Amino acid sequence: MNYQKANSERFKLAYKLAQTAGELIIAGRKNNSFEQSYKNHNELVTSIDQQVDDFLISELKSHFTEDQFLTEESYIPGQDEFDYTSPTWVIDPIDGTVNFALGHPQVAVSIAYVEKNEVQFGIVHCPFLNETFYAIKDEGAFLNQVPIKVSECDDLSNALVATGLPYDKSTIQNLLPNINTIITHARDIRRNGSAAIDLCWVACGRLQAYFETVQPWDMAAGTLIAKEAGAYTGHYGDQIQDSDLIPDLMSKQLLISVPTIHPQLQELLK
Amino acid sequence: MNYQKANSERFKLAYKLAQTAGELIIAGRKNNSFEQSYKNHNELVTSIDQQVDDFLISELKSHFTEDQFLTEESYIPGQDEFDYTSPTWVIDPIDGTVNFALGHPQVAVSIAYVEKNEVQFGIVHCPFLNETFYAIKDEGAFLNQVPIKVSECDDLSNALVATGLPYDKSTIQNLLPNINTIITHARDIRRNGSAAIDLCWVACGRLQAYFETVQPWDMAAGTLIAKEAGAYTGHYGDQIQDSDLIPDLMSKQLLISVPTIHPQLQELLK
Repeated sequence: MNYQKANSERFKLAYKLAQTAGELIIAGRKNNSFEQSYKNHNELVTSIDQQVDDFLISELKSHFTEDQFLTEESYIPGQDEFDYTSPTWVIDPIDGTVNFALGHPQVAVSIAYVEKNEVQFGIVHCPFLNETFYAIKDEGAFLNQVPIKVSECDDLSNALVATGLPYDKSTIQNLLPNINTIITHARDIRRNGSAAIDLCWVACGRLQAYFETVQPWDMAAGTLIAKEAGAYTGHYGDQIQDSDLIPDLMSKQLLISVPTIHPQLQELLK
Repeated sequence: MNYQKANSERFKLAYKLAQTAGELIIAGRKNNSFEQSYKNHNELVTSIDQQVDDFLISELKSHFTEDQFLTEESYIPGQDEFDYTSPTWVIDPIDGTVNFALGHPQVAVSIAYVEKNEVQFGIVHCPFLNETFYAIKDEGAFLNQVPIKVSECDDLSNALVATGLPYDKSTIQNLLPNINTIITHARDIRRNGSAAIDLCWVACGRLQAYFETVQPWDMAAGTLIAKEAGAYTGHYGDQIQDSDLIPDLMSKQLLISVPTIHPQLQELLK
């Protein structure tokens, strides 16, 4: 099987699995039978996160036995030194776990496929909003099969800007100046609770910018979707990144926006 | 027609009209044919806001010819000195106009009915989320006909708190300390862009608190829904209110939360 054909099959399978994962998430909320616990002291995880993670890994592994997996629920610190030239899946089974547990609609399954040191395609499926975003490298971005692109925005004062906050409150004071700057200079701020969805909303023109420090599984798919929709994808501040990661997965101080306002945002965010 | 029967008919009509208004809003977005303009210099209004406002007033007036109307799009400063002992409708045809214009799902029609100086019932219909919240005074709160109540929350550190920001940026610096305090002390913050929906989300346990200075039409229905679901409804800070308004419509420095954390929030918010 040649490279293109194998990846086309990977994309089709992942797209289908994202829908099934969405059904598991909807069923989990409906039954209201999931368990909640905390990892890393204060980060919520539910039994549905683990169930969807297991489901996606098991299904993808059964078709592509050699592929590597970097997923939110299977991640063990120190075990993330992957060879990103080889097939690797970067997955967040539920992006927006707090939203999921509390009954909000902004919940997503995020699946990215990496090879040759680049994200080749990304899928973000939002089961409660009936929306599936995806992008294939160099082939554009789509929402429910319809092409999407970023909005026009001449100035930050006309931009709706989303951000997120860490579970760990120990660094929160350092983040307040940036939030205050955006509240002061942008049209308004949004805090939806799902990084993957925020990135897709930049891609389809619902937001004009998004900034946050997240993890690779939160941003791998959404960043390609935003990029393919015409967003400028980069970073702000001092950009200290994990040297084990490829550029497409560098998730610290992420800054994704309509190209015209990217310089303004880089100037303002520290 | 006696008082109770007339109000039961008002409720049934308003509930039905909220659904039809939702269909107008969905059609307006689908056709993408609406015009956008700005009132009070920087507050977005679309032709769909005006269309839905006209529709609701005209339909309600045709059935209840003597009723008064305080609505977002028909409001003229100085003309709001109503006699709230008599039948009065307080309406926001589209709460979340920026969300509507940009394609976000958090958009609501908010209809409250006032008589005897109190809100008698409130309806908040969210057409893109297929959710209708309502409450009748002393009869509880409902989401899609199912009773709802606030969540339990032992401490602000476990609370998801929503807030909003004014269109007018001239006072924004005064609001930053409260936002920073909540980001520091609460579990996390949400900024969804619709006050009516934030209030309903406190009512059904998706949020544990909401604070903001808004207008009566933004909060009249949602506040009754939150109150009937068990929320504590009050104010924070110096509580300077418009003396022409009845207590149920006092919309400045609004603070609605799970009862247990209300004192903590009142202590923290200035």
